[in-house]
Amino acid sequence: MAGSTFGTIFKITTWGESHGKGVGVVVDGCPAGLSLCEEDIQKFLDRRKPGQSKYTTPRKEDDAVEILSGVFDKKTTGTPISLVVFNRNQQSKDYSEIASYYRPGHADYTFDMKYGFRDYRGGGRSSGRETIGRVAAGAIAVKLLNQLGITFTTYTKSIGPIAVSSQNFDTSEIAKNPLYMPDAEAAENAQNYLDACMAELNSSGGVVECIVSGMPAGIGDPVFEKLDASLAKAIMSIGAVKGFEIGDGFDAARATGRSNNDAFCLAKDGSVTKATNHAGGILGGMSDGSDIILRASIKPTPSIAATQQTVNKSGEQIEVSIKGRHDPVIVPRAVVVVESMAAIAITDALFANMSARMDSLEKFYR
Amino acid sequence: MAGSTFGTIFKITTWGESHGKGVGVVVDGCPAGLSLCEEDIQKFLDRRKPGQSKYTTPRKEDDAVEILSGVFDKKTTGTPISLVVFNRNQQSKDYSEIASYYRPGHADYTFDMKYGFRDYRGGGRSSGRETIGRVAAGAIAVKLLNQLGITFTTYTKSIGPIAVSSQNFDTSEIAKNPLYMPDAEAAENAQNYLDACMAELNSSGGVVECIVSGMPAGIGDPVFEKLDASLAKAIMSIGAVKGFEIGDGFDAARATGRSNNDAFCLAKDGSVTKATNHAGGILGGMSDGSDIILRASIKPTPSIAATQQTVNKSGEQIEVSIKGRHDPVIVPRAVVVVESMAAIAITDALFANMSARMDSLEKFYR
Amino acid sequence: MAGSTFGTIFKITTWGESHGKGVGVVVDGCPAGLSLCEEDIQKFLDRRKPGQSKYTTPRKEDDAVEILSGVFDKKTTGTPISLVVFNRNQQSKDYSEIASYYRPGHADYTFDMKYGFRDYRGGGRSSGRETIGRVAAGAIAVKLLNQLGITFTTYTKSIGPIAVSSQNFDTSEIAKNPLYMPDAEAAENAQNYLDACMAELNSSGGVVECIVSGMPAGIGDPVFEKLDASLAKAIMSIGAVKGFEIGDGFDAARATGRSNNDAFCLAKDGSVTKATNHAGGILGGMSDGSDIILRASIKPTPSIAATQQTVNKSGEQIEVSIKGRHDPVIVPRAVVVVESMAAIAITDALFANMSARMDSLEKFYR
Amino acid sequence: MAGSTFGTIFKITTWGESHGKGVGVVVDGCPAGLSLCEEDIQKFLDRRKPGQSKYTTPRKEDDAVEILSGVFDKKTTGTPISLVVFNRNQQSKDYSEIASYYRPGHADYTFDMKYGFRDYRGGGRSSGRETIGRVAAGAIAVKLLNQLGITFTTYTKSIGPIAVSSQNFDTSEIAKNPLYMPDAEAAENAQNYLDACMAELNSSGGVVECIVSGMPAGIGDPVFEKLDASLAKAIMSIGAVKGFEIGDGFDAARATGRSNNDAFCLAKDGSVTKATNHAGGILGGMSDGSDIILRASIKPTPSIAATQQTVNKSGEQIEVSIKGRHDPVIVPRAVVVVESMAAIAITDALFANMSARMDSLEKFYR
Repeated sequence: MAGSTFGTIFKITTWGESHGKGVGVVVDGCPAGLSLCEEDIQKFLDRRKPGQSKYTTPRKEDDAVEILSGVFDKKTTGTPISLVVFNRNQQSKDYSEIASYYRPGHADYTFDMKYGFRDYRGGGRSSGRETIGRVAAGAIAVKLLNQLGITFTTYTKSIGPIAVSSQNFDTSEIAKNPLYMPDAEAAENAQNYLDACMAELNSSGGVVECIVSGMPAGIGDPVFEKLDASLAKAIMSIGAVKGFEIGDGFDAARATGRSNNDAFCLAKDGSVTKATNHAGGILGGMSDGSDIILRASIKPTPSIAATQQTVNKSGEQIEVSIKGRHDPVIVPRAVVVVESMAAIAITDALFANMSARMDSLEKFYR
Repeated sequence: MAGSTFGTIFKITTWGESHGKGVGVVVDGCPAGLSLCEEDIQKFLDRRKPGQSKYTTPRKEDDAVEILSGVFDKKTTGTPISLVVFNRNQQSKDYSEIASYYRPGHADYTFDMKYGFRDYRGGGRSSGRETIGRVAAGAIAVKLLNQLGITFTTYTKSIGPIAVSSQNFDTSEIAKNPLYMPDAEAAENAQNYLDACMAELNSSGGVVECIVSGMPAGIGDPVFEKLDASLAKAIMSIGAVKGFEIGDGFDAARATGRSNNDAFCLAKDGSVTKATNHAGGILGGMSDGSDIILRASIKPTPSIAATQQTVNKSGEQIEVSIKGRHDPVIVPRAVVVVESMAAIAITDALFANMSARMDSLEKFYR
Repeated sequence: MAGSTFGTIFKITTWGESHGKGVGVVVDGCPAGLSLCEEDIQKFLDRRKPGQSKYTTPRKEDDAVEILSGVFDKKTTGTPISLVVFNRNQQSKDYSEIASYYRPGHADYTFDMKYGFRDYRGGGRSSGRETIGRVAAGAIAVKLLNQLGITFTTYTKSIGPIAVSSQNFDTSEIAKNPLYMPDAEAAENAQNYLDACMAELNSSGGVVECIVSGMPAGIGDPVFEKLDASLAKAIMSIGAVKGFEIGDGFDAARATGRSNNDAFCLAKDGSVTKATNHAGGILGGMSDGSDIILRASIKPTPSIAATQQTVNKSGEQIEVSIKGRHDPVIVPRAVVVVESMAAIAITDALFANMSARMDSLEKFYR
Repeated sequence: MAGSTFGTIFKITTWGESHGKGVGVVVDGCPAGLSLCEEDIQKFLDRRKPGQSKYTTPRKEDDAVEILSGVFDKKTTGTPISLVVFNRNQQSKDYSEIASYYRPGHADYTFDMKYGFRDYRGGGRSSGRETIGRVAAGAIAVKLLNQLGITFTTYTKSIGPIAVSSQNFDTSEIAKNPLYMPDAEAAENAQNYLDACMAELNSSGGVVECIVSGMPAGIGDPVFEKLDASLAKAIMSIGAVKGFEIGDGFDAARATGRSNNDAFCLAKDGSVTKATNHAGGILGGMSDGSDIILRASIKPTPSIAATQQTVNKSGEQIEVSIKGRHDPVIVPRAVVVVESMAAIAITDALFANMSARMDSLEKFYR
C-alpha cells in the first residue's frame, strides 16, 4: 500500500529512512508565485533539530535542506517542490544489535509482521527523522497561510504531570526555554522533572497545543472531511501521538450543554463572533472564525536505558536495555511537527473550499 | 468540495438530509460473496434508533433500510451496494423558526459561511440522521470482519462525571441498560445524573469506548496511513466528537517510558504477545495483534431548552430556547456509530495491506 | 476494490444493475447555489432513452429521475445530490438462459473471473443502464459549466463506414435525425447502412465527437492530471469505447511538425489565439482557450442475433444466438454519455485549478 | 492542484524540471521483498536516453539513477523508493530567448495562463526529461510484474506513413534498429522518411504499440476503473500523445458485430480462451486473459527549425525558428515510456483486485 502521501489538492509525499542516503518530501499542489528559498525551510527544520539541549539526543545532525525542483527565480512555479536532507551522521554499527529483538514501545515487531523484514538501522522509516519531510513541507504551508493572514502559535502544554498554567501563560516565553513552554515557571519545573526521569533511566510524555488564528469561517466539510477530522488524521499520523483533542476535547465529555455551548454574539464591527470558545473554532466540521485550538498527547520516549523485558526473533524471552543516548522527552521537538501537520491539513482544506459556491465560481471564471 | 466519501478501497459515500426524501449510503468495494440481507443492516440501525428510552428523542423513526443494488441471490456481487432509508416522520414546521438565527453549538452559522445558505430543516446535512448511512455501511463492514475473526465490543464508558469502573466491568450488561454501559451500577448513577440534567433543561456529554479483538498484526502503515490516524479521522468525522484516544491516550502524556512501554512476551503457543496494552494495539501505526482500544469524547447535546444568547441573521443579539424534545445525551446512540466507523476504517486498512509483500503477491497471482 | 467513483473535487458515485431495484448516482462536490430541478436532469436522460427509433432497443424505459437530497428551495445546497431512477420494465425471465454461457463481446466471462459469480440479468452492472447515473450527473455538470460560459456540441461522427462530411456539417441537423448526425445526407446513408446490418442480424460501430467551447485557458495539469488524460479516462470508462482521440488524434501520428503545429496569432481584441486547432484545444495537458475536440470509437453492439461460437460454464463449446431485440448500434445513445463524462471531467479540472496561483488565493481569501 | 501523482495503491510521484537540479520519482506502495538495484532501473533509463542515433537529440545526458530510500539488503522494504537523476548537462543559455514568446505546439502559453509565469528553461516541467521519473518507476513495475508472469513487448508501430507490416513482424528486430521497429524493412523505410523530414527542417509523428502477455483474467473494474480506462489515462498523460486505442480501437468503429466479436473457445487444457482478440484483452473493463494490446498516437516533435508564426509576450506577431538540434521524432524514445506507464497502471489494478472476493480474503487472513 502507498501510505506516504498526505493531502488531496495540497499533497505531500515523504520518503527516507534514518540510516539511508537521506530523507525528503515532494510538495505537490503548492500555488505558483509564493516566494521561497532554502532559508524559509531551514528555520523550521532547526526547530526540530536534536542536540540543542540536554533534553534532546546529542546525535548531531546538520539537516541542511536542498530545494531540488519547483522553484524558479525565487518563486514557486506551481510544480512539485522536491526537498531533500541528506543523512550525514548516521552510524549503523550502533544499531546492529537491535536487529535481533523487538524493542518495547517501538515498531520493530509490527514492521516484521507487515513486511516480513525491516531496515533495523535507527528505526528505519519509523525513525523520528521521518518528520523532517513533514516539517520541510510544513514550512511551506505555514508561509503560504501567513500570507493569507493565518498564523500559528504552538508550544508544549505539559511535560509529564507539569502543565502550563493559564495565569502564567506568555507566548513570548516559548522561545526562551528548551522545552518551548509558554510559562517560565512550568518550564523550570518540567526541567527538574526531566532531570529526575533521566536519573532513573526513564523518559516522559507530554502534550503539545497548537492555536491557529485568522481562519476564515466556513472552511472544512460537514461530513467525512470535517476540518477537525482532517486535523486529527494529520496529527495522529505523527509517531508517538496517542490522543487528539479539539477545543475542550475530553473535558467536553464531562461538561453539560449549558457550560459547553458557546454563545454567538456581535463584535464591535457588527460581525458574528463567539463569547467563549469551548468548540475550539470548529462547529459541525467547519471553522467558525474563532481560533482553532488543538492538542496532541505524546507518549514517553520508548527508548529507555532501564532494563526491559522483551522477546527476540529466535522466540526467546530476554532482557534488554536500549543503548545510546536518546531524548528523555520528544515533546519539545514535536512542537514544530504538530504545527507543520496542522498547517498542511488546513492548506488542503482551504484549497478544497474554493469551489463550494456558484457565486465564487462565477466570479473566478467569468 | 466532495466530503461525503470515506475510504479508499472499501469506500462509502453517504447522502441525505434530515428532512429531505431520505438518507442513504453507497458502499463500494465490498468483496463479492458476502451473504447479506436487509435484516443484517436493520439490526445495526435499530441500535441507533431514537425513541427507545426517555434519554433519546421521542421522534419516531421507522428507519427501515432497503438494499437497492449490489446483492444478488442473497450475496454481495462486488459492485456498489446502495442502501436507503426513506424519511417518513419529518415535520418541517417544527424547524421553521431556526432558519432566522444561529443555534449555539450547532453548525447553522458555519453552513451559512461556507455555502451562503442552508437547508435549515432539522439540521439538514448536520442532523444526527446523517449517521444512518454510516451505520448501514458499518453493519456490512462488521459482518465482513466477523467472518475474518475480528470482533467489536463498544459501549458507553462515561456519562458526564459518571464512569464505568474497571471492577464492575461486565460486557453482558451493555445490552441491559438504555445507556449501553458495561456496569449496572454506573448505568444507574448515570441515569440519575441525566434525570437531573433534564430537570435543569440541560444535557450531558460522555465517552464511547470501542475494543477490536482478533486483529492480525501488521495492519496499517508506518507514516500517514497509520491505523490509529485512519481511525482518528473516522471517529472525529462523527458529529459532536471532540477528542480521540488510542490505548492510554492522554494518560500517556502524563506517564513515563517505564510504565507506558508494553513488554513483549511469549504466549503459551510460542507466539509473540504483550504483557500489557498501554499502546492500545497499535505500534508505529500498525496493529500489533493485541486488542485495539479507542475512545471518543462526545460533547453534550447542543440543543437545550434553557435560554441561551445568540445572534440572528439580521445582526441582532437575541435570546433563544431550543423548542421540541431532544436527546439529553447522544452518547448511547453514538455507540453503534463509533463501532461502524471503526469497522469501516479497519476494513479499508485490511484491503490495502494485501499487497504489502512480494511473497503474498506471488502466492495470490501465480 | 471501489471502482464506481469518478472525480476528486467534483465526484460522482454510480450504483445499480439492469435488473435490480434501480440505478442511481451520488454527485458530491457540486457547489451551493446552482438552481436545479428534476426536469434539468430528465431532459438529459431522455437523450439516452431507448425506444425512440427502430435503431434502438424497443425495451420501454420510463427512466424518471428523482432527486433525493442536496437540493433545497430549488437550489443545490453544496451537499451530496442523490439521484435515482427506479427500474420498472425489467423482465428477468428473458435473461435466464445466458446465465449458463459467456456471450462473445460481453463481460460475462470477466465478471465470473473477477468476482466468482455474476448478476446475469441483463448484463447486471455492465448493462447500458449503468450510464443513467453518468448522464444524470452529466446534466448537472453541463448546467454548471454553461453558467460559466462553457458549452458542448456532441454528435455522431460516423456509423460504420459512413462519416459526416465537413462540407455538409450543420449542427442544427443533430436533433433532426435519430442518429444525432450533423449532416442530413450522412444520416440517411447511415440509416440505410444500419437497415442492411439489421437484415443480416448484424450490428455496427461508430464514432462520437464532442466539442467544448468557451474553455478558459490554463485548465488541466502538465503531468499526470493532463486535461486530455482525465478526459481519456472519463471517456474510455464508458462501456464499448475502444479508442480516444484529442484534436487530430491518430492522424497526428502520420503528420509532420510543420503541418501539425498550430501557429499562435492575435485575435482582433489583441488576445492570443491559434490559426488552426490540430491540438484539439489542449497543449501540454492544459487547455489553450480554443475548442476542445475529442472523439470516442465505439464498438459494434456485441448482442447480435446471428449464430456465434462460445463456451458454457460446463466447459462445452456451443453455438448461441442472442435472443431479444437489441440496439443495432449504440452510438446515438452514447452521444449524451460522452458529453456527460467530458463535462464531469472538465468540472473537476476547473475546481482543482482554483488554487494554482498565490494571487488568486489572496484575492479569494483576503 | 497536485497533478504529479499517479496510482492509488501503487503510487508514483514525479518531480523535476529540465534545467533544475534534477528529476526524480517517489515510488510508494511497492511490496517488500522485491530484489532491486540501481542497474535494474538504469537499463530502463538507457532505453530512453538521447544521443543514441541521429534521430535523437545529441544533447548528452548521463541520466545515472540513484536509489535514495526504500531498499535495504538489496530488497525493497515496502516503504517509499526515492529515485533521483541529477541534471548534469543543462545549458540554460540556449533557452533564454524562448522566454519571450510562445513556441507553437509547446506548453509555453498554457503554462503562463495557468501559473502566471513559467520556468522557461528547456521546457521546464513539460520537458521530455519529466519522463525519467516515469521510466524509473516503470522499471520497478515491470520487474515486479515479470515476477508474477506478466511480460511486455513494446515497439514503434509506425513513423509518419511508414507502418510495420504484419507479415514482416519480428520482435527480435526491435533492438536491432534505432527506431525500435519489429520489422527491418519498415525500419529502413522509416529512416529514409526521417532523413527527408530532417532535410526539410521538419519532424514526424508515429505510433507506439504495447502488448502485455500473461495477464490473469478478471483484473480491472466494470465501471470507472476499467482497466482500459486506467491505461488510457496512464498513456494519454505522456506528453505528445494525442490518441489511445485498445485492441482494434478506431477500426472497431468501422466494424460490425459479426467481425468484431471474439468467439470464446476451449484451449487444449480445457481453459477458456478466445479465437481472436479484437477486444485487445479487455472485456467490460476487465482483463480476459488474452494479450492486452494498446496503442498510442504520438504527434510530431513540435520543435522544428523551419520558420513558424507565433506571438510574443509583448503581444506582437513574430516569426521564429526553434534553434538547437531536437529529435526529429520522439516515437522511439517514447517506447519505454509507454511500457512504463502501462506497467504502473497494471500493477495498481492488480493490487486493487486482491480484495474482490470474500473467499480470497478468508484465505489471506484466516
